[in-house]
Amino acid sequence: MQLYIGNKNYSSWSMRPWVLMKQAGIPFEEVMVRFDSFEADSTFKKALKGVNPVGKVPVLMDDGFAVWDTLAIAEYLAERHPEKRLWPADPKARARARSVCAEMHSGFGALRSHCPMNIEASLPDTGKLIWRDQAGVRADMARLSGLWSELLAAQPEGALLFGDFSIADAYFAPVCMRIKTYELPLPADLAAYVERVCALPGVKAWIDDALAEHDFLDFEEPYRLGR
Amino acid sequence: MQLYIGNKNYSSWSMRPWVLMKQAGIPFEEVMVRFDSFEADSTFKKALKGVNPVGKVPVLMDDGFAVWDTLAIAEYLAERHPEKRLWPADPKARARARSVCAEMHSGFGALRSHCPMNIEASLPDTGKLIWRDQAGVRADMARLSGLWSELLAAQPEGALLFGDFSIADAYFAPVCMRIKTYELPLPADLAAYVERVCALPGVKAWIDDALAEHDFLDFEEPYRLGR
Ligand SMILES: N[C@@H](CCC(=O)N[C@@H](CS)C(=O)NCC(=O)O)C(=O)O
Ligand SMILES: N[C@@H](CCC(=O)N[C@@H](CS)C(=O)NCC(=O)O)C(=O)O
Repeated sequence: MQLYIGNKNYSSWSMRPWVLMKQAGIPFEEVMVRFDSFEADSTFKKALKGVNPVGKVPVLMDDGFAVWDTLAIAEYLAERHPEKRLWPADPKARARARSVCAEMHSGFGALRSHCPMNIEASLPDTGKLIWRDQAGVRADMARLSGLWSELLAAQPEGALLFGDFSIADAYFAPVCMRIKTYELPLPADLAAYVERVCALPGVKAWIDDALAEHDFLDFEEPYRLGR
Repeated sequence: MQLYIGNKNYSSWSMRPWVLMKQAGIPFEEVMVRFDSFEADSTFKKALKGVNPVGKVPVLMDDGFAVWDTLAIAEYLAERHPEKRLWPADPKARARARSVCAEMHSGFGALRSHCPMNIEASLPDTGKLIWRDQAGVRADMARLSGLWSELLAAQPEGALLFGDFSIADAYFAPVCMRIKTYELPLPADLAAYVERVCALPGVKAWIDDALAEHDFLDFEEPYRLGR
């Protein structure tokens, strides 16, 4: 299996299936499709031609068969590797995990647009301005806090959202990156969850690669002129 | 099981699981939460308090357990009713169905925002202006045509996207409604697919209810002052 991904510093959607597979120990070959632009004639779009009709990453290629869109990739891997328990085993916990992933998949728009993932950057002052001015970001963070608190309250101390690592943690990993880059305020127990996610070997491996990348792409950098 | 939904004329997300259950013959009780506004103090939001922390419809309540977000509801029903084959049985077809549903779940933003679902309305002139002015809508429709064409080409004439009815058809049913309301241009074979979807008893039942509704909500009506 090949996983097509974008820049590790910037591509939040790519991060999810990569972390999922790495952390769960599912072998795959990484195909890096660096962002240059998202124009039709970009190297990025050309590289994805014939791979994904939507022209986006991530894409999972299984023996020439393309699975696109993060949630579909996660479901595909969960079916193919039942032994990895990528979703929680309990049917209700599994349903809840799917609710929060689908919610993430189509929601949290303010957080996603105002705080683009940028692992290498440290932007606490920008974060303070965003926090002051963007009610949508505060609302997204309030919902996130409510969601994480409720799930973690049902788990033993130090656990992940559904106990052991699951697709849900992979889904929220890029959010953890944003919280760190922009130093968004969070209660201590949830900040501790963010640290636990960052310490997962699969997440750490992604972060290390992102830090080694050294690309600077204007269109992914609304807040900086350079590194 | 109860399914909480919004106005049938307007609520595209509610339509998907309702049509899915109706068409597949899964019994459920409908709980209509009419839209008044989406403000925190609206009757709508109050009715959803204690039901769904996200404050949106649809929500499936199974013996007091809430499953929210359309895609999570679809997966929950597919797991609970394997005999209904809500997803295609073949693993690759199933993966492809999940890709296109997840793509719909987070994509087609221009089509969704410029052509809000409004089953009762007939707005061909508005549709022509949108078509002329909104490149994003044209791009979304081009992708939709590509997607439908490719899937239907693999099926016998007159079939649905994956042969028999599946979650994918339920997912695209509200798009079929928009295409009809705004009379968006579409090749003949795809217009015929739209008609097949509209003729499904589960879809027809929803349309009939929508037409009988007679609500007029300003915030769902960017193009009309009244019915
Ligand atoms: N819903 C998609 C979103 C994928 C996505 O938006 N990927 C970005 C990179 S993080 C991309 O490829 N953008 C290219 C473009 O928008 O043209 C998924 O979950 O996979
Ligand atoms: N991703 C959600 C979207 C649900 C959604 O946006 N529902 C609309 C009605 S069609 C709603 O309840 N809106 C209320 C609000 O935005 O406050 C799903 O798939 O269920």
